[in-house]
Amino acid sequence: MKLNTNPINASPKIGILGGGQLGLMLIEAAIRFNLDISILDAAHAPCSKYTSKFTAGAFTDYDAVMSFGKDLDIITIEIENVNIQALLDLQALGKKIYPQPELIALIQDKRIQKQFYLDNHIPTAPFILTDNLADIETHADFLPAFHKLAKEGYDGKGVQKLNSIADIPLAFNKPSLLEKLVPFHKEITVIAARNENGETSTYDPVELIYHEQNMVDYLIAPAVISDNVSDKARQLATLVINKLELIGILAVEMFLLEDGTLLVNEIAPRPHNSGHHSIEACFCSQFEQHWRAILGLPLGNPALRSPAAMINLIGEPEFSGAVQYNGLDTLLRDASSYLHLYGKTETRPYRKMGHITILRNEHHSLIEAVNKLKSVVKVVA
Amino acid sequence: MKLNTNPINASPKIGILGGGQLGLMLIEAAIRFNLDISILDAAHAPCSKYTSKFTAGAFTDYDAVMSFGKDLDIITIEIENVNIQALLDLQALGKKIYPQPELIALIQDKRIQKQFYLDNHIPTAPFILTDNLADIETHADFLPAFHKLAKEGYDGKGVQKLNSIADIPLAFNKPSLLEKLVPFHKEITVIAARNENGETSTYDPVELIYHEQNMVDYLIAPAVISDNVSDKARQLATLVINKLELIGILAVEMFLLEDGTLLVNEIAPRPHNSGHHSIEACFCSQFEQHWRAILGLPLGNPALRSPAAMINLIGEPEFSGAVQYNGLDTLLRDASSYLHLYGKTETRPYRKMGHITILRNEHHSLIEAVNKLKSVVKVVA
Repeated sequence: MKLNTNPINASPKIGILGGGQLGLMLIEAAIRFNLDISILDAAHAPCSKYTSKFTAGAFTDYDAVMSFGKDLDIITIEIENVNIQALLDLQALGKKIYPQPELIALIQDKRIQKQFYLDNHIPTAPFILTDNLADIETHADFLPAFHKLAKEGYDGKGVQKLNSIADIPLAFNKPSLLEKLVPFHKEITVIAARNENGETSTYDPVELIYHEQNMVDYLIAPAVISDNVSDKARQLATLVINKLELIGILAVEMFLLEDGTLLVNEIAPRPHNSGHHSIEACFCSQFEQHWRAILGLPLGNPALRSPAAMINLIGEPEFSGAVQYNGLDTLLRDASSYLHLYGKTETRPYRKMGHITILRNEHHSLIEAVNKLKSVVKVVA
Repeated sequence: MKLNTNPINASPKIGILGGGQLGLMLIEAAIRFNLDISILDAAHAPCSKYTSKFTAGAFTDYDAVMSFGKDLDIITIEIENVNIQALLDLQALGKKIYPQPELIALIQDKRIQKQFYLDNHIPTAPFILTDNLADIETHADFLPAFHKLAKEGYDGKGVQKLNSIADIPLAFNKPSLLEKLVPFHKEITVIAARNENGETSTYDPVELIYHEQNMVDYLIAPAVISDNVSDKARQLATLVINKLELIGILAVEMFLLEDGTLLVNEIAPRPHNSGHHSIEACFCSQFEQHWRAILGLPLGNPALRSPAAMINLIGEPEFSGAVQYNGLDTLLRDASSYLHLYGKTETRPYRKMGHITILRNEHHSLIEAVNKLKSVVKVVA
């Protein structure tokens, strides 16, 4: 019957490489469409509780990924640091791998990612490639700059600010890039989605407020920017996802300069910390949007139902060990705030352990609630 | 440390008797609080996919329930038809059983349930107990009435309308009750919650529109009733949950008569079909509210964020076999509608296979969307 050709009716077997918090929220969204989800990650990863099809293994390992993927129909990721060769070989066997493995490879390497921006006339901060510490010295006039490891940085790790050559001992003696320090007004992120039909959709830009450790402390949605800048940011995110021809979700982090210029900072080809508010604040969450994009379904409505803030629950620096959360009663009594815990049993300094989403009708009340809840809800041991 | 005595920090081991669609939606809500969930139901029940702790067995069987519960801290249900003796014995071993087993027993038997209303001055339709068909004949003057099996009725089964003694062959030759046919204006449901501290909360009344098979076809939230009737309905639901001293969620179905009188029809001590819209339409869903109530957390905010409708996706009468869904594309393109599938692989006539939630700003658009989507989305084989 023609009418029931919707991909949900085919009950595809879906695998996720990675079983952390993004996997958890992907499972939440998968339950609604009754998707068949298998997960590959280290034993006891957060997702292991919430699927009957959990495989303990390394998503960085060729054999582990091949063995995991061989009976699946569609494979996706919740982390970029996966074995690309296995994904390419699974793709050659006829599996759908979304986002596409060659795009994960491009994004895994910040040097190739930067070159992609240049090649496609996507505005980005000026940069220089460096292979070792000696290289940096030859570019002293390029400082102050951020030194970024080509691979494997995350959550503020693998990034070092270099103010002058005196800071070179802090830099990475590995393939990296020096990115010119650009004085920016705000950091914003736009989450874009694109499905197999080339249909695209973008969420409202969100504004990121950073923690001392280069981690997002909280975000505000929508970003407090003009409609004009918001439109430009969404167009830029659409340009990036279209140039990549990516199928799935793409988080596009941008610098907004004082003069309104937007520069693409980094991208991530998966649901992203900058989109967690979408679970409660948007008509369609970034997690459902990811499923829609990779399953060939119509994309969902990204519009905000309410202004929102999202606070990362980060391990307090002086605690390590079995996690305990302070202040949950206060949080749970807030009439329009939401707790999300990631199921990590051990806290460590600055580890991301969960998040809080706050809904309010206007910006001032949001900031007030952020400050109140940040002062009360603490991740300790 | 005094501050982190919140029950979430104790990571209790929680079991659910039943692993159908209510269990699925309880798991969705459990993921956010990272709850440790075990489930007992027949092999391949919908929940079996979404937990690593699924036990195949009968929740009606004493030994199966005892064995399932012996290492758990808290046990709850998503269906009433469970082995009460095992729950009483587990309770005696110090397990928390919420809702309490003696209340599940009371509600399992519609005759005892009705007597409870009388004893507690809770308004309900007049009734007569019958043990066999001969009993009904002696009460011919009480017809027209509904004949209801004392136990094991659900989704319109176990209920038979008797217009006159000519219909007696359709009635049940088992312990049952005859409930006077009350001409009502609307059927509404209020979902109430109550935690260990005796804190209570009620959702806005919803209005139920019935299908020919005595199943809910769709519901509208909030019910189109006066504020005065709405307040009375919430007060009545609060009275019932307080009189029961129930810990958990209680769905209170009511008849609203033309003169504004409210009569309690039936109650269910668990998340309920009449509360499915709360996932997207309310600040706190009935499923999170259930966890909050039984875990001793502060109750969540039941307020509506938006008017909503919920359509049950029911197997078309002429189809049995491997399920297929027609019209999903149209549904998924609706900017503020939501698909929930229950993971039942086989459809049968009138089987509940999923639901759709629709959000709109006002009643007229809701009804329009209900009619459109009901005509397009069909459960076939």
